[in-house]
Amino acid sequence: MNDTLPPQDGARLHMHEGLTAVPGFRAMGVRAGLKSDRPDVGILLSDREGTTAAAVFTQNAYAAAPVHVARENVADGDIRAVVVNSGMANACTGLQGLRDARAMAKRTAERLGLHHRQVFVASTGLIGEPLPMEKVLAGIDACCERLGEAAGGEFETAILTTDSGPKTAHATLDVDGIAVHIGGAAKGAGMIHPNMATLLGFVATDAAIEALHLRASLRHVVDRTFNQISVDGDESTNDTVALLAGGASGVTLSPEHDAWPAFVAGLTTVCEALAKQIVADGEGATRIFEVHVRGAASDAEAQRASRAVAASNLVKCAIHGKDANWGRIISTIGATRVQVDPARTTVTIRAPAGAVDVLQDGTPTEAREAASKLLEAREVTLQITIGEGSGEARAWGCDLTNDYVSFNAHYTT
Amino acid sequence: MNDTLPPQDGARLHMHEGLTAVPGFRAMGVRAGLKSDRPDVGILLSDREGTTAAAVFTQNAYAAAPVHVARENVADGDIRAVVVNSGMANACTGLQGLRDARAMAKRTAERLGLHHRQVFVASTGLIGEPLPMEKVLAGIDACCERLGEAAGGEFETAILTTDSGPKTAHATLDVDGIAVHIGGAAKGAGMIHPNMATLLGFVATDAAIEALHLRASLRHVVDRTFNQISVDGDESTNDTVALLAGGASGVTLSPEHDAWPAFVAGLTTVCEALAKQIVADGEGATRIFEVHVRGAASDAEAQRASRAVAASNLVKCAIHGKDANWGRIISTIGATRVQVDPARTTVTIRAPAGAVDVLQDGTPTEAREAASKLLEAREVTLQITIGEGSGEARAWGCDLTNDYVSFNAHYTT
Repeated sequence: MNDTLPPQDGARLHMHEGLTAVPGFRAMGVRAGLKSDRPDVGILLSDREGTTAAAVFTQNAYAAAPVHVARENVADGDIRAVVVNSGMANACTGLQGLRDARAMAKRTAERLGLHHRQVFVASTGLIGEPLPMEKVLAGIDACCERLGEAAGGEFETAILTTDSGPKTAHATLDVDGIAVHIGGAAKGAGMIHPNMATLLGFVATDAAIEALHLRASLRHVVDRTFNQISVDGDESTNDTVALLAGGASGVTLSPEHDAWPAFVAGLTTVCEALAKQIVADGEGATRIFEVHVRGAASDAEAQRASRAVAASNLVKCAIHGKDANWGRIISTIGATRVQVDPARTTVTIRAPAGAVDVLQDGTPTEAREAASKLLEAREVTLQITIGEGSGEARAWGCDLTNDYVSFNAHYTT
Repeated sequence: MNDTLPPQDGARLHMHEGLTAVPGFRAMGVRAGLKSDRPDVGILLSDREGTTAAAVFTQNAYAAAPVHVARENVADGDIRAVVVNSGMANACTGLQGLRDARAMAKRTAERLGLHHRQVFVASTGLIGEPLPMEKVLAGIDACCERLGEAAGGEFETAILTTDSGPKTAHATLDVDGIAVHIGGAAKGAGMIHPNMATLLGFVATDAAIEALHLRASLRHVVDRTFNQISVDGDESTNDTVALLAGGASGVTLSPEHDAWPAFVAGLTTVCEALAKQIVADGEGATRIFEVHVRGAASDAEAQRASRAVAASNLVKCAIHGKDANWGRIISTIGATRVQVDPARTTVTIRAPAGAVDVLQDGTPTEAREAASKLLEAREVTLQITIGEGSGEARAWGCDLTNDYVSFNAHYTT
């Protein structure tokens, strides 16, 4: 075990490969007729018995039926397949919705020779519409039949709603000369916010990892990636991120293993890449920005402060207008009630072309115009130091545009 | 004391009269040159010794200098005058900002023969710009000289920033045949959110009320009015609502007095009218909506849930698009983590033309199209029953439009 790379560089990133780049996993998606023109039912299968899984879910009190069923099924960590539909969210569908979510798991299990509790279920799309179960079940059948075929991104496409395209990421670690893969796919677009609003993410690895450790690593990473993005501040009924460990690499990992930090770094790399693709595809978004808060009393406070800035309409409009508006930035942080030291607050605008302080130890500088020039870059970082603590976090947001308003004034969710 | 009207109707409302309709108060505003073309320094004076005052302030950690000075000065409840400037917020201005805010109080006190601690200070406008004190002090002098003149809304105009016009309200109570007045003026427009973002409100009454009771009534009423409005979810550095009781009516009120509920109702009427004018004047807003949450576990949970709906970008866009999108409404409430019973959740759209349920005990109805018709009214109510509790609250929001984005992408705060 000589080749574990340091955390931030622990994984090479392949943006255009996803789940099916992970040995031991197969995925497929088909057009079942829930949406007019795109695949809408997808299945991900791990070929290996003993596959473990962990998941994090929306905290929304009106959580959809598939969230309840998936939470039950993943509880013991024994999952072999994921079934997903887009088009309808199966949310606010009462008892029938629960029956339908269970029927999706049951049919998938029958077709693949699994126990129905080994199937993880997810849905996304319109709230309040019952699932057209005949179409869904026929789609599951077709999907299972085609799982042997070479994948061409059908699964990644089947999970989308208003997304402009699939989101995938893949990383590879070298553990004692053996390649360990981590690959993922996600959907986002509208309603993206901390605590995972209308976001589905599926990540697979060919390491073997006990469910207990898988859960801890996923929670840690989701808190720093998917939960740190925001498109519009709402949180949906269906958000789910699931992580499956199949073990085809023959490498078993745990926190005691020297390569564990590299695995967590690789998982972070994949989830951050997916999260940023989701932000970049935010409805109407033209640009994304990173918020980097330092000097907080704790990482948790830094997370809260950075999320708030990434979610602020006024900041999002300022980014759209290329305005280095530090007043809106610190006003937003101040409103979160995290501990700050106004006299030690510094706001720095960073872009590929350079970095300038627009507020330095609480005092405005003359660099606002220079900073606005930097904001012309497509990806920029707002770095805010809020005191003397060691708490630090990053969050990502996209600009707020006229197209966002036009889209959401006329789209029925 | 026979004529006290019941709480909800306890006050007649005169929308076009404000502070100066309250006997014993004088107000003036002048052009001091902080803004190019409008009055920008204003003074409100109570003629009577023994005037009491209470105030509530922003919770923002980067609270502006005038907030610190006003909080100190109002602590003992002994205030005779208010001095306000618009143009610059005197926020993030360090020690010099505190000196400048104190200098505003001192000059006002000198000109009016008061102690500097009897002067309440407020500022609104650009963050991070030092006050041009020569102009401010000259403005204070001019204002004090002209306090005797008949008021023509100069004070109400001097406190504005991006507002399209002054916001005033006035109510009268009959206490044992004596008229008691409550009048107020406010500014809002951009950055309006719960906990009072860039909002200044000044309310005066000619009742005599101990500061202790004034404080309790103001806190109670602000929580139900100014803190329940939202334009864009951010909270500013300068928000302030102050209430002065001069006593010119000769009527002394306290919670033991039979007319106290009518006074609180009158204060609520004035503050709600001001709050709704602020919402209606939200940047780019074309329509306002009321959110009425019932059946919550407590009033506090209902306040939180209703505020979240009023602040949701997706709901605001749906209102703009006349879309009875109950999915977004309950998804937003669900995300607040207040206690809800999904199977007893009902969403009703109310307008002058009628009311329809779009979700009834957790089940979607067929009335969505009818509801969208109702949403064509300029003022609509979204009523959400979330369970069996008795907690209830109202909040107010405006729609999110393309103009909001255009405005905030190019305005420097």
